[in-house]
Formats: sequence, structure tokens, C-alpha cells
Amino acid sequence: MGKDKVSFTLKTPKGTKDWAGADALLRDRIFNTITEVFKRHGATSLDTPVFELREILAGKYGEDSKLIYDLQDQGGEICSLRYDLTVPFARWLAMNPNIRSIKRYHIAKVYRRDQPAMTKGRMREFYQCDFDMAGANFDPMVPDAEVLRIATEVFEGLGWNGSYTIKINHRKILDGIFEVCGVPKEKIRTISSAVDKLDKSPWADVRREMVEEKGLDGAVADKIETYVVRKGGRELLESLMTDETLVANASAKAGLEDMALLMDYLEAFDVLKKISFDMSLARGLDYYTGVIYEVVTEGSAPVAATPTTEEAQKLQKKSKSKSKKDDDDRSDDPSVGVGSVAAGGRYDELVGMFSNRAQIPCVGISFGVDRIFSITKARMEQENSNNKKVTEVDVYVMAFGGKGFTGLLKERMDVARRLWDAGVKVEFSYKRKPKPMQQFEAAEANDVPFAVILGEDELAAGQVRVKEMGLEKGHPEKDGVLVNLTSLAEEVKARLERKRSAAAATNAGEGKDETVIEKGVEGLVVKGE
Amino acid sequence: MGKDKVSFTLKTPKGTKDWAGADALLRDRIFNTITEVFKRHGATSLDTPVFELREILAGKYGEDSKLIYDLQDQGGEICSLRYDLTVPFARWLAMNPNIRSIKRYHIAKVYRRDQPAMTKGRMREFYQCDFDMAGANFDPMVPDAEVLRIATEVFEGLGWNGSYTIKINHRKILDGIFEVCGVPKEKIRTISSAVDKLDKSPWADVRREMVEEKGLDGAVADKIETYVVRKGGRELLESLMTDETLVANASAKAGLEDMALLMDYLEAFDVLKKISFDMSLARGLDYYTGVIYEVVTEGSAPVAATPTTEEAQKLQKKSKSKSKKDDDDRSDDPSVGVGSVAAGGRYDELVGMFSNRAQIPCVGISFGVDRIFSITKARMEQENSNNKKVTEVDVYVMAFGGKGFTGLLKERMDVARRLWDAGVKVEFSYKRKPKPMQQFEAAEANDVPFAVILGEDELAAGQVRVKEMGLEKGHPEKDGVLVNLTSLAEEVKARLERKRSAAAATNAGEGKDETVIEKGVEGLVVKGE
Repeated sequence: MGKDKVSFTLKTPKGTKDWAGADALLRDRIFNTITEVFKRHGATSLDTPVFELREILAGKYGEDSKLIYDLQDQGGEICSLRYDLTVPFARWLAMNPNIRSIKRYHIAKVYRRDQPAMTKGRMREFYQCDFDMAGANFDPMVPDAEVLRIATEVFEGLGWNGSYTIKINHRKILDGIFEVCGVPKEKIRTISSAVDKLDKSPWADVRREMVEEKGLDGAVADKIETYVVRKGGRELLESLMTDETLVANASAKAGLEDMALLMDYLEAFDVLKKISFDMSLARGLDYYTGVIYEVVTEGSAPVAATPTTEEAQKLQKKSKSKSKKDDDDRSDDPSVGVGSVAAGGRYDELVGMFSNRAQIPCVGISFGVDRIFSITKARMEQENSNNKKVTEVDVYVMAFGGKGFTGLLKERMDVARRLWDAGVKVEFSYKRKPKPMQQFEAAEANDVPFAVILGEDELAAGQVRVKEMGLEKGHPEKDGVLVNLTSLAEEVKARLERKRSAAAATNAGEGKDETVIEKGVEGLVVKGE
Repeated sequence: MGKDKVSFTLKTPKGTKDWAGADALLRDRIFNTITEVFKRHGATSLDTPVFELREILAGKYGEDSKLIYDLQDQGGEICSLRYDLTVPFARWLAMNPNIRSIKRYHIAKVYRRDQPAMTKGRMREFYQCDFDMAGANFDPMVPDAEVLRIATEVFEGLGWNGSYTIKINHRKILDGIFEVCGVPKEKIRTISSAVDKLDKSPWADVRREMVEEKGLDGAVADKIETYVVRKGGRELLESLMTDETLVANASAKAGLEDMALLMDYLEAFDVLKKISFDMSLARGLDYYTGVIYEVVTEGSAPVAATPTTEEAQKLQKKSKSKSKKDDDDRSDDPSVGVGSVAAGGRYDELVGMFSNRAQIPCVGISFGVDRIFSITKARMEQENSNNKKVTEVDVYVMAFGGKGFTGLLKERMDVARRLWDAGVKVEFSYKRKPKPMQQFEAAEANDVPFAVILGEDELAAGQVRVKEMGLEKGHPEKDGVLVNLTSLAEEVKARLERKRSAAAATNAGEGKDETVIEKGVEGLVVKGE
């Protein structure tokens, strides 16, 4: 310890982490699955700077604006790190008013100065994968339905096999309910925020917030309760449509009509079965104007939605007695769930906040990759997947020799070069005279399928030995086969291809989990690859 | 203008930009080519936070530290945006002392508060693609040679076809020269920085800096000149090795021996032909300890290395008369070149700056994607590539009908769903009753290869029409073929596959540019795809 040169703790900033090894590989596979779905729906990629002029972010996030990270004023423009990918997309649309129709995706990190719960994927720096559609002339609910279809394709592609629910609601229905119940206009947004907590807190707590903190008439709160505790499918919608008081309200009526159309389209897309029309869903952000949704799964909700006072005290004590390093991490707090794994909605007026001329209606969804990663990883660990492969190397080039062995370094380099030239993924030992066992162990540690073995006598005859790793004793090719250097690349590529086809056939024969989105699943099922 | 709601300029922060459309697509292809090369050499992915504790970055970048972006102190830790990907990699190695050997790649944005020259790819926020190897027990120069091999594979993969040079030098040779010439020890780094400017400025200017600004004895500067103006290959190395004064210096001797070994290995890797041993190459960063290199190409150097006073005045005037928007951009300044497109070297002591225990020797290279992008794009524009495709959509689902036509929206949705289920990339109009021409134009605008056309009568018989776009008049399938809905997905996939194979065969037959790294080129040559 005393010898170390640094006097500060060697760590990443609070709420951030490094991604390496198997975690980085799994995360990349999740990205690939999601990107593939986005492209299947015709999306193009957009990338914006990690920071924006501070004015761009101002007034977009309601109460959450306090979580925005600011850059220091070092002379010049005043900037902040982006809080989401939606506002930068809207800013880009406002700057490009000639674009009247686009589907874009964006995979990037966003920044929120919140209290982290790291193992639950609640971070200060975290990835979002966003898909959004902007269209000046799209007919109602058609793009909205496709966005929800995309949500199902992503989660099926990830192999979740139906174990998720898409909660939907509509801002106009909510606003209509608040009006009908008698909430004063200026209190609608704040009462809406209170309602949104119903996934974490019981009605009694939410009512207390409305009445005691926000000064709402208790009778009004009780009326609200009769609506917002309801959830269901088409039958709930039909029942609301017979509620004469509600339908008499213009906002509620428009929302209900939208919802009826949406359900129709979701049926055509085979998505309706995954939907829960949840009247308590309100979403915190200011900019939504129509349909809103959240995808939840097991673990999204807190373990203990309402800890008793005793439990809460214990928890606080436990948190305080923990080491300094993670005293601010809420991973062990049962009142913190993973939260939603994807969320979004319609925001028809956000672009207009930047430029009236560029005004364009939008709808989109954001996938929370860190949370999706946590859940997918836990599932894979349950399935006891024990893949050790973190690289994709095809061939390990090695050399053996007896007394006076030189190591054949330049010869190994030459062979590696021949294979790289042909696009084969190759490694070799960076020792001049590596030991045979070291070379075999290095190949086995990474599950490299083939070895190319150099010996002085064979080389003199222009040959090397190609050996498939892991063949059983007695296999005719257990000791490898001699191949001419001139045809080595061709021979190795043919063997790799054969091995891949055989593996694919075996997987198919074993009747592995196959979902609709074959390629996505293949990307994710590490076991047996 | 008066109607717009925002009072500030709608823009991205200075020195940053959005990536969209064809640019984003080309950039992604460059990423893919580079990633493929990195993986071919067994690299795994590492991702670190965009900001680090400020102490981590302190004392690593010499004079350039003033360019670091700081986050505002909002309570809690003091952080800065990363300046490169090398220091975060070293910090990660120091935090993981059990890792004694790794090849990692990292593609991400880095941040420098420099004066931008946007069209030349000199930005404040820009991408780096880094490959680095850390190894406790690697033998000398073996990994260094592989890193330079990777450089050639990347540029060949990008289709640059040899039009680049790898300048190499060695810190120990440079230090030896400075010692031999009589530079005082405390002036070695600052004199080294002056030498590094020889790619942009003539010797007279560099000498002036050394003598007048940095107080070096003129006679010492003149001795330095005899060395640093030299460049060449093996013959230069051999000539230096006969320089008895130089070889008597321990540092120079060690550097020259390294260089001889490196050239040997580069020959085995078929890279030597791309190398220029350039004794003026010094690299600014403090942390290099051994071999250093930069990859340059046409456009790397300034157009006018030394503008006359008159030219300089004109330039300044021109710059001042430009619109406010880009008055700080140096894109038009002929004294600013694109700079190097990749650079790196050996840094054996950087990890030890964080933790003695984790000390591990490293070597790596960083590719400047924004500059590579600018050059690749310019080349493609010269080649008059006119590809309009920015999405990869396979099929556009459309509907036609006569009087009383309903638009068949839900039917189009159902057909799209069937194709998405099979992994086919599909779009359709978001209008309830789209006009035939609108639908055809939307498909043509994106070069979509197939249309699936719905008509009420065919649908009643359980059929739709599959039509390949762009067939000539008189082609037997010009009007498409009728296909049963139940076998639609299968039929479309077979046709897509056939079309792809045919296109590949045509390209091969035409004898298109083919370099060693076939797949990379295929990814980049947009023309004819």
C-alpha cells in the first residue's frame, strides 16, 4: 500500500462502471439484437454530441431537471451532458426543418445525477437504445402501433419469450379524468406525477401526497381513485366508453378514440396480447402528449413496495454501516426495483418548442440496456451457462521443437500473416521461445477451435500441421493433418466452415429454444455456441 | 423568424456535430471494418465512462492538459471528460492487477477544447478507435510489430490501397540523440516537442523556437539538425548503427537494437514496405517510452506549410469576414492539415503511475475516425458514387384499389407482420389511404428492391403480388407474380437471396477493386451494392 504512488482512490466516478470481458460481449449482443430490429423497421442511425447547449435541455424534464450534469464554464458556450436521446433528436429535427418524415435509432449513453443502485442497472451513466418516428402526415396511431410492435420484437429477440408486459395509457385520457374529477388546471401535472407513483406505492400514500403535500380536495382524490386503480384490456376501454361523464369531456373522448384505434392496429400486429391498459401510468416527463407506455418485467417493481417503519429503519442502519465505497449505492434496498426496461410515448409538441416552423409530431421508445443487461445476465446465470469464450479467435499458431529449438517466431509470424490476409482470426504467443504447454493452454483458455502447429522438419518440407482442438482420443485426426503452406488459408477456412455448419446442425437437431426472431436469439444464446 | 420561440441559436456546441443519413452509414461501415480487424487479432471490447475523476487525467498529457473539459462541481466528486482512451485503459489495468495479458479495443468519443477545423475532421468531440496490448511477459517488439500490422490491415480494409505511410521512431533513440548533442536533461521534453513540429514547419522555424524561445545553445541545435532531418528505411538504421558517438550512448543503443528487431518482424508481417523511419517524429504526449508511430496520407500535411505574411493576412481577413456561425472554424486555413490518421506507441510506465503493483508494459494505436471519414468521403465523392440508399429495407408493402378503395391498412399491417416475423426488413405507408404513386415513390427513394402489392380481389383469394422493383419493360415478371399469403415470407426470402447472389456474382465478374481484406472493402464500396 505504502508504495503506491496515488493518494486518491482508484475508481470510476460514482454511478459509472467499466464494461469488460463477458459483460461487454453480452452487452454488444444485446445492442446487435436491438439494432437488427430497428433496421428491420427501416430506421437509420443518428448520433448527436454527448453535451448540448444548456438552453436546449432547459424546461424539458420537469422536476427531474435538477439531475442534469453541467459542464464547467471554461469560457465560451455553457453546456450540459444530455439527459436523454429524445430532446437531442427533437433539436436535430428543429435544425433540419426540411425533414418531414424519418425513422431514426440512436444507441448512446445518457447522464443523470441520481442516487445509483448499480446491480439493478440504475446508473448515473447508462445506455439508452432509442427508436423514434417523426412524420408530418402520418395517420393517427399507425406509427404508435409499430413502435409497440418493435418493443415485442426486441424482447422476443432477446429470448425473453413473452415474460414482459407493455403498460399503456394516454395523456389525454388522464387529463380528461383529472378535469372530470375537478382537479384545478394548474395542479394537473403535479397530480399526474403523484398518480405515476402507484407502481411503487399504495393508493393511501399517493392520496396523502395529493391531499397533504399538494393541497388537493380529498373528495377529488377519491374520485380519481375510482379511475386510476383500473387496468385491463379492450373490456376496460369499452367500459370507459360507456362512462357518459368521461366521454362528455373532449380530451378524454379524443384519448379513448385513439386508444380504440391503437388496439385495432395492435391486433393486426399480434401485439395486443402483451398489452395492459393501466390507468395509473402517467410518466414523469413533461413533453408527452398522447399514448404513453412502459415495458415491465419480473423485478421491475420493488421487492417490498412499502417497507414498514421498522424495516425502513433497519435498512437505513445497514446502509450506514457499509463501507464508504458503496454507501450511496441502493442496490440492496428492497424498495428500489429495476424499474421499467423500456418506455416512451407520443410527443407532438417538443420539436415546436425549438422552432415553430419545424413543428412535427413524433412518437418513440427508449430501451434501458443496463437494466435489460442485468436481467438477461441473471437469467443466463440461472441457466448455468458456462461459456468462457470472450474472443472469437479461430486459430492459434504454435511451434514445437526438441533440443536447440529456436521458437520459430518469424515463421509463426509469417503463418499468422497468411491467415490474417485471408480474414482468419489468429493469435500466437508473444514469447520468442514459448513452451508447448503454454501455447496449448492459451488456445484452450479461449476455446480457440483450431491450432496450426509448426515444426522445423515439416516447415522444411513446406508444410504445417492443422489440428482441431478437443478431439477425442482415437479420433483419426487427433494429431492433426499435414497441410501445404500454400494451401493453408484455404484449408483452414474450409475446416472452420465445416465446423460451423456442423454446430448449427447440432443446435437445430437438439430443438433448441427457437423464437420468431431467429437471428436475434442466435446472437444471444451463448450456451452451445 | 419572429415567430420562433427560442431566443438562442439552434446549434450543436462548438466543435461538435450530428451524424445522420449517408454520413452515419459510412461512419458505421468504417467502424465495422476497423472492429473486424481488431477481432481478427483476438481483441476484446472494453468500455469506460465518458468522464473520469480529475486526478486520473492529471499529469498525463503535458502541455495539452489545458485542453481538458471539466465537469462543473455540483457537489460530490470532481470529474473531467476523457481526453483519450489510453489513460482510461491504463486506469482500468491498474484497478485490475490480476490481468497480466490482454488485447482490448475501444471505440468511443474523446474531448479536447481545441480550435476546431470541422471539414478536416479536427473536432472538439471526436471518435477514436483504439487497439492496445498489455503484457507482463511479452518478448520485445513482437506486440509492437503486430500493432503496425493492424494499421495496414485497417487501411487496406478501408480500401486505401497502399496510399498511406507509417512514420516510426523511438523515444530512446531521440533521447540518446539529445544527450549526445548536449541538450540539458531538463530541456529534453520541451526540445522534443519542438522537433515534433518538423512535419508542419521548416527547420529554420523549429531552430528559432529551440534557441530563442527555449534557450538552447545554437551549436547544440545545429547538431540536432544533422539527425532529425533524416528519414528512410533499413539503410538509415544501418548508417546510425555505425555512428560511434551515438552507439556509445546507452539509450540510443537500446533504441536502435529495438528498431532492428522491429524491422525484422515487420518484414515477416509484410509491413516493412509501408514504413518510413522518420527521425523528426517525436509525439507530444508524455507517456511514451519506446517505439512511436503516426500514419499519414495525402492531406495530412498542411497545404501551405509556411504561408507568406501576405497570404497569412489575407487568410485572417477572410476568416473575419465570414458569418458569425463558423468564425472559429479553421477548415479553410491552408496551414492546417488533416493531421495523422492514426498514431500510437509503447508506454511501459503509464499503468505504474496509478499503481506500482499493477505495473504492466503496453503498446497501442489509435485511429482517428473523423479524419479517416473526411478522407474516405472525399475519395468516394471523387469516384462519383451516387448511392441514395440510407436504409437497408428489403420490402415495401403497398395497396392499390379502384373506386371505394379502403386503403387496406390493417391488411398491409398483417402482411408486414408476417415478413417481420421472418426477419425481413419491411416498410409501408403510414397513411390510411395512400396514393399508388406515393407508395412507389417512397420505395424508389430508398432503393427498396421488392414491393409486395395488395389488391382486394387477390387478397380475397389469399394472394398478394410480389414485384421486383426496376425491372425493364417486357420482363416476364415486370408486373410481379402472385404468391399465396401462407408462403409469402418464404418466397420473399428466396428472392432476396437470389438477388443478393446475383449482385455478388456481377461484382466479382466486373473485376471490382479487390484488396486482401475482402470483407472490409465490400462493406465500404457503396457503389454497385
